[in-house]
Amino acid sequence: MIVDEKMIAFANRLADASGAVIRPYFRQRIEVTHKPGVHAFDPVTEADRGAERAIRAIIDRERPQDAILGEEYGEKPAGLSANKWRWVLDPVDGTRAFITGRHEWGSLIALEHDGVPVLGILDQPVLGERFIGVNGRAVLLEGEKRTVLKVRECPALKDATLCATDPSAYMSPDEQDAFARVKAVARLTRYHGDCYIFAMLAMGFVDVVIEGPLHRWDIAAMIPLVEGAGGIITGWDGEPWREGSRTLACGDARVHEQAIKLLGGRQ
Amino acid sequence: MIVDEKMIAFANRLADASGAVIRPYFRQRIEVTHKPGVHAFDPVTEADRGAERAIRAIIDRERPQDAILGEEYGEKPAGLSANKWRWVLDPVDGTRAFITGRHEWGSLIALEHDGVPVLGILDQPVLGERFIGVNGRAVLLEGEKRTVLKVRECPALKDATLCATDPSAYMSPDEQDAFARVKAVARLTRYHGDCYIFAMLAMGFVDVVIEGPLHRWDIAAMIPLVEGAGGIITGWDGEPWREGSRTLACGDARVHEQAIKLLGGRQ
Repeated sequence: MIVDEKMIAFANRLADASGAVIRPYFRQRIEVTHKPGVHAFDPVTEADRGAERAIRAIIDRERPQDAILGEEYGEKPAGLSANKWRWVLDPVDGTRAFITGRHEWGSLIALEHDGVPVLGILDQPVLGERFIGVNGRAVLLEGEKRTVLKVRECPALKDATLCATDPSAYMSPDEQDAFARVKAVARLTRYHGDCYIFAMLAMGFVDVVIEGPLHRWDIAAMIPLVEGAGGIITGWDGEPWREGSRTLACGDARVHEQAIKLLGGRQ
Repeated sequence: MIVDEKMIAFANRLADASGAVIRPYFRQRIEVTHKPGVHAFDPVTEADRGAERAIRAIIDRERPQDAILGEEYGEKPAGLSANKWRWVLDPVDGTRAFITGRHEWGSLIALEHDGVPVLGILDQPVLGERFIGVNGRAVLLEGEKRTVLKVRECPALKDATLCATDPSAYMSPDEQDAFARVKAVARLTRYHGDCYIFAMLAMGFVDVVIEGPLHRWDIAAMIPLVEGAGGIITGWDGEPWREGSRTLACGDARVHEQAIKLLGGRQ
């Protein structure tokens, strides 16, 4: 499925609109509320909600037939003449970083066709960084500067830099044990970063990202981004990511195989 | 001890020179070497070394009597007419973030007078952020924009956001236990960040920073920065930081007291 230039431009406009809403909230006193849910502390910001509203308004106006799935405002089914397009949105992924004044968060905008993510944007409007994966390629745009993203080689897990957002908060005890087996072999492990660590993998500075179960809006944009940079992103079992999968992303297929074994898949 | 404008301008020039050296290395393939030392993985970059050489060259040329202590090139004693000034340098604090393409590192430049840190700069040349603490004030400079830094109130540890770089790597088992006692009470704990988390505390987004023993070049610049923003930075025992101290920084004195008790000081 090739995404045409017009659709890519539309996706970029969504990211522009989202960033314009979010940017003024960063490092301001923001309202933090609590949602019932899986995690003990899951802040929701006005920035997140305002940006999702801004994106939805544009889609509703210009592409009213498209379906939408967003973290904040749920699902909008496709119109009667269902066109197989769906936008998957999470305008502030990495809310804990955001509310502590740190930069490792991003706005996630994915476009799915018939359930398959075919375009993924990670936009960091404060840094002015936009990572885009589409049509088998991935790039970082910084103003006029365009950098092609390419994962790096890493033949062996022992040489790998491993990232995960927060195993102690987001993984079950069994999952933490599995993660610890990979960590014991990897050269360096770094925590936190949410979507941003997938971007660093796509850029060739991180070799392995391991996360527990993610929501679709956390992962959909990451799939075209990682794959477009030549990486692999699957469940812990090596199978394509699906609802309920735990997430494994690797830059090098050899490390991917090693990680799957240690995580307990394909034994 | 008031630091005059001329000296502040000189310190800013050192940071400018350092940033100019470091900036091109970020997100490039960099040479990573290993030093013997406390930590299992302690990368040293060309950026770090080049920036320290650039800073030292300026000091040697324009203020040859000043003493220098730098992470990479050691100590230069003060000249015969010892003038009590010493520069304490760590051009890339947060090397692990740097080599993984992440932004939470900074260039630390401190000025001591008679052993007391009186000026501290945390410069992030890629983000264009410069945090400066001097003469009882702290500011963030971003180009022409100047933001006065002020810690936030936080009456109780249970409401606090706690940060630490990496207890599992940089703290002894006993220290990790003490840290865990604070973490058990705090509302939210975030890892990594090195110097950058002190800046977020000065800015009012983080309430407590706990680190194990730090080198002087890791902490000297943080003292005027945190104190200038109205915060408190001491050893775990609440006493002024000295060689060998473990580090506790808080925005609110009430949380500082609570943390000291849990860490095992002043019981």
